[in-house]
Amino acid sequence: MRIPKAITNLVESFERLPGVGPKSAQRLTFYLLHVPQGELDKFALSIQKLKVDTVICSICQAVDESDPCSICSDDRRDKTMICVLEEPLDVLALEKSGKYKGVYHVLHGRIDPLNNIGPEEIRIQQLMDRIRNKDLGIREVILATNPTMEGEATAMFIAKQLKSVNRELRITRIGRGLPTGADIEYADSTTLDQALSGRMDY
Amino acid sequence: MRIPKAITNLVESFERLPGVGPKSAQRLTFYLLHVPQGELDKFALSIQKLKVDTVICSICQAVDESDPCSICSDDRRDKTMICVLEEPLDVLALEKSGKYKGVYHVLHGRIDPLNNIGPEEIRIQQLMDRIRNKDLGIREVILATNPTMEGEATAMFIAKQLKSVNRELRITRIGRGLPTGADIEYADSTTLDQALSGRMDY
Repeated sequence: MRIPKAITNLVESFERLPGVGPKSAQRLTFYLLHVPQGELDKFALSIQKLKVDTVICSICQAVDESDPCSICSDDRRDKTMICVLEEPLDVLALEKSGKYKGVYHVLHGRIDPLNNIGPEEIRIQQLMDRIRNKDLGIREVILATNPTMEGEATAMFIAKQLKSVNRELRITRIGRGLPTGADIEYADSTTLDQALSGRMDY
Repeated sequence: MRIPKAITNLVESFERLPGVGPKSAQRLTFYLLHVPQGELDKFALSIQKLKVDTVICSICQAVDESDPCSICSDDRRDKTMICVLEEPLDVLALEKSGKYKGVYHVLHGRIDPLNNIGPEEIRIQQLMDRIRNKDLGIREVILATNPTMEGEATAMFIAKQLKSVNRELRITRIGRGLPTGADIEYADSTTLDQALSGRMDY
């Protein structure tokens, strides 16, 4: 039995998604066979419109409906403080916490030599341009890349670049230590080490 | 920051898929933001065309490009033997083994009272119609529903129905026991029990 082309096409599309293997791709495709055509059309339309109806903010590189984005064009935000993040999704996570009042800069990736991603492949240049622009008066940059090997390397690289551009700039790394709800018994030694050196006075 | 509508739409569509939670749906959506528009259009088209370009075979209820499907219209297949399966995907799995030369019947589900799926919701009636049609001369029905509680119940229900329709029909259940590559040490007791009672002479 030859598998219908309509099915293999969709299986192949699903397989390209991260974390979806050949078996899950098949399962998702055959699941969709039981879904009404109206739902499929809606799904298809939302994929087609994803990039058409969104723009990347020319200031902070976040994904939004307008350029500049709703954060960069908000007068109540502190424009002198930039939080540097790896992905657009990270902005949503930080916004959910509701504590941060500065603006963002999204790198759209991390320096990852093993996957051929160098500093030119991510949006570091745009960050440097913001820092160099004296009119903006940036005072602090919080490096909030992920606490992974690649994220740390990216933060270190950017910190070095920033220092060479502006010596008065405050450059910080997002706090490291035990996350809420963690258990010291199960914490790894690197995290405990960083939790100790990052201890704070009451 | 309000999340753009184009993004929430796609996140919601992904969330409806089985095994995709809110976090994975977000991750998949933001992954697609880095994918070229051409690929997105292809993905969208394959979703839209999935049901348009496939039909359900009026004989065996399998999903194919033509009706009757390539198996039901193949003269080399033994039309007197029907293998009953839960899902269209199961046909592909059996065809891959390449051993089975009969035809199929796809139920499109299983009897599952906890989820309000009774015998009328799956395609048992169409199977009975095939059995009742004396011109087809069906000799054997292999019940190959999944070895789960719902699959077993479905097989038992169908076996009872079949017996009442045709007393001469051979009704079999797909063999149960240890799968290739399994380890007796780790096998569960039900499987071992069935492997023993299903033992075969050398």
